[in-house]
Amino acid sequence: MIKSIRKHPNNKQFIVDALQYNNWSKEIFEQMNSSGVAAVHVTICYHEDFRQTIDNITRWNSLFQKYSDLIVQGCNIEDILSAYESGRTAIIFGFQNCSPIENDINLIEVCHSLGVRFMQLSYNNQSLLASGCYEKNDPGITRMGREVIKEMNRVGLVVDMSHSASKSTLEAIEISERSIAITHANPHDWHPALRNKSNEVLKALSQSGGMLGFSLYPHHLKNKSQCSLEEFCEMVARTADMIGIDSIGFGSDLCQNQPDSVVEWMRNGKWTKSLDFGEGSLTNAGFPDQPTWFKNNEGFGNIISGLKSVGFSEDEVNKISGENWMKFFEKSFSSG
Amino acid sequence: MIKSIRKHPNNKQFIVDALQYNNWSKEIFEQMNSSGVAAVHVTICYHEDFRQTIDNITRWNSLFQKYSDLIVQGCNIEDILSAYESGRTAIIFGFQNCSPIENDINLIEVCHSLGVRFMQLSYNNQSLLASGCYEKNDPGITRMGREVIKEMNRVGLVVDMSHSASKSTLEAIEISERSIAITHANPHDWHPALRNKSNEVLKALSQSGGMLGFSLYPHHLKNKSQCSLEEFCEMVARTADMIGIDSIGFGSDLCQNQPDSVVEWMRNGKWTKSLDFGEGSLTNAGFPDQPTWFKNNEGFGNIISGLKSVGFSEDEVNKISGENWMKFFEKSFSSG
Repeated sequence: MIKSIRKHPNNKQFIVDALQYNNWSKEIFEQMNSSGVAAVHVTICYHEDFRQTIDNITRWNSLFQKYSDLIVQGCNIEDILSAYESGRTAIIFGFQNCSPIENDINLIEVCHSLGVRFMQLSYNNQSLLASGCYEKNDPGITRMGREVIKEMNRVGLVVDMSHSASKSTLEAIEISERSIAITHANPHDWHPALRNKSNEVLKALSQSGGMLGFSLYPHHLKNKSQCSLEEFCEMVARTADMIGIDSIGFGSDLCQNQPDSVVEWMRNGKWTKSLDFGEGSLTNAGFPDQPTWFKNNEGFGNIISGLKSVGFSEDEVNKISGENWMKFFEKSFSSG
Repeated sequence: MIKSIRKHPNNKQFIVDALQYNNWSKEIFEQMNSSGVAAVHVTICYHEDFRQTIDNITRWNSLFQKYSDLIVQGCNIEDILSAYESGRTAIIFGFQNCSPIENDINLIEVCHSLGVRFMQLSYNNQSLLASGCYEKNDPGITRMGREVIKEMNRVGLVVDMSHSASKSTLEAIEISERSIAITHANPHDWHPALRNKSNEVLKALSQSGGMLGFSLYPHHLKNKSQCSLEEFCEMVARTADMIGIDSIGFGSDLCQNQPDSVVEWMRNGKWTKSLDFGEGSLTNAGFPDQPTWFKNNEGFGNIISGLKSVGFSEDEVNKISGENWMKFFEKSFSSG
């Protein structure tokens, strides 16, 4: 059992968000602080290699130094609890791709030492480790993938399968000796995006002690940008009915203030010379508009109210809003 | 039609070998020269990234400078013809893996500009582009793989599927607008090694104008190190009967004077923390002994005699020993 959540200076609800990729600024950090966001898993790599990822880490180190009154690096539970107590936000590093470890399994331990706590085994496409959700065929976890999962388990780097394909995800759940996460996705039967997850995957995930973070990225929402707060919260309730109240949390996938060039980088990296539009299209290539009730971190307040409206108790809301992720972090981040 | 093969100073048979990875030395270069080896495709990468591959290229550039009387870089047909005419050997660069292009399709053109003429889409394991022959499941050519083949076709970098899995190979043959190569392998029905190729693959290869280089690496030979010259030459004859005389050549896979640490690197790279023995085993982990009749480049003389003994005409021997590869190089190496 995790240590008790402490008191927030402004008595804000304790929130953990398992995925954001904003154009980071003082304003956004302040929004997180004032919204009670105790911890955010931030993406520090989409396609970068090891050296480029180090550059992203040094940029974060500068932000930690410059905004030490607003943010702190989050490597463990205690970092998050004390950030919340001081009205700040803990920043947890994660990779949406395995590109930073290149083809060297030894870089996993190095990345963990630098504070990285999540790594997706693939990002949309086939990787050296697993298949991505946009590939036509999914061979499952590769030879190197099996070795890498073992090493991630050893050092305490969470396997994240948010952008991976189904067979690869089911195999990762089976092979990994520690519970895995799908930090940002929704059920496929609610909105049939390639990125959303089948009930089979979600059930296997929860049965193995894994966690799902609900996404608020419009391409993952029924009716996209027009998705209502009630529709979203009802989906959360149905998912809780299916996989239990202890396996769910937030993973908003918030990409605040990013120019459209960033979504182009996310989709294309350097793997193609023609343009790939991913979840978008030629005529709708940029970032989609966020729902009006979740434009930034302040929107968590709306969701908390919405969850209560669809029937969740206060204890259940506390679990979803942060306690479930905290329990998962506690068992996941230290070396095995 | 290629220009005529010119006269060798010592009237040696014109030989092209589509794969060697020796511990290069003056002695080996002299053996190649005196054996009439006009061109050798040399491996300059197994697992190296772009920067490490550049180091390997600069090492070769030093060798070209130091041994300019023995070797010359081979970027096109003319380089090979003139090397042979002067009793020297042209060195053609190739990758046994796609690791040098990392995840950047733009590096393909850069590598071609530096003289690289072959790239395997995978080496035993799953890569970003294709599956390897040691993986349990083969999804075929990946999304990035399709883009990369297009770019390789454009610049004139040959797709080599020697270490790739079957479905990936068949798809590469189909997708590639230029003929592809299997530079070093033998028919699977002669010796059922994972690295050898099915008749289905070999037929599709030849029907599309591709080339097979026969391997002399003992793990690819029936009876391994004890394979007789006659058994080898009869296999060549049966393969010629099956796929035609114009699609076959040499790809010896000669690894002369290499320490066993090199085969460990080839098999393991940095993808696993436990040891993988590839085609070997715990009790037979090192390089196997070469057959007595092919210990080094001088062995090509034995093979030429052996091919004549099993019934090949002089014209047919000339095709196998070098003319077929020259025709393939001529149509493959220039930009499309």
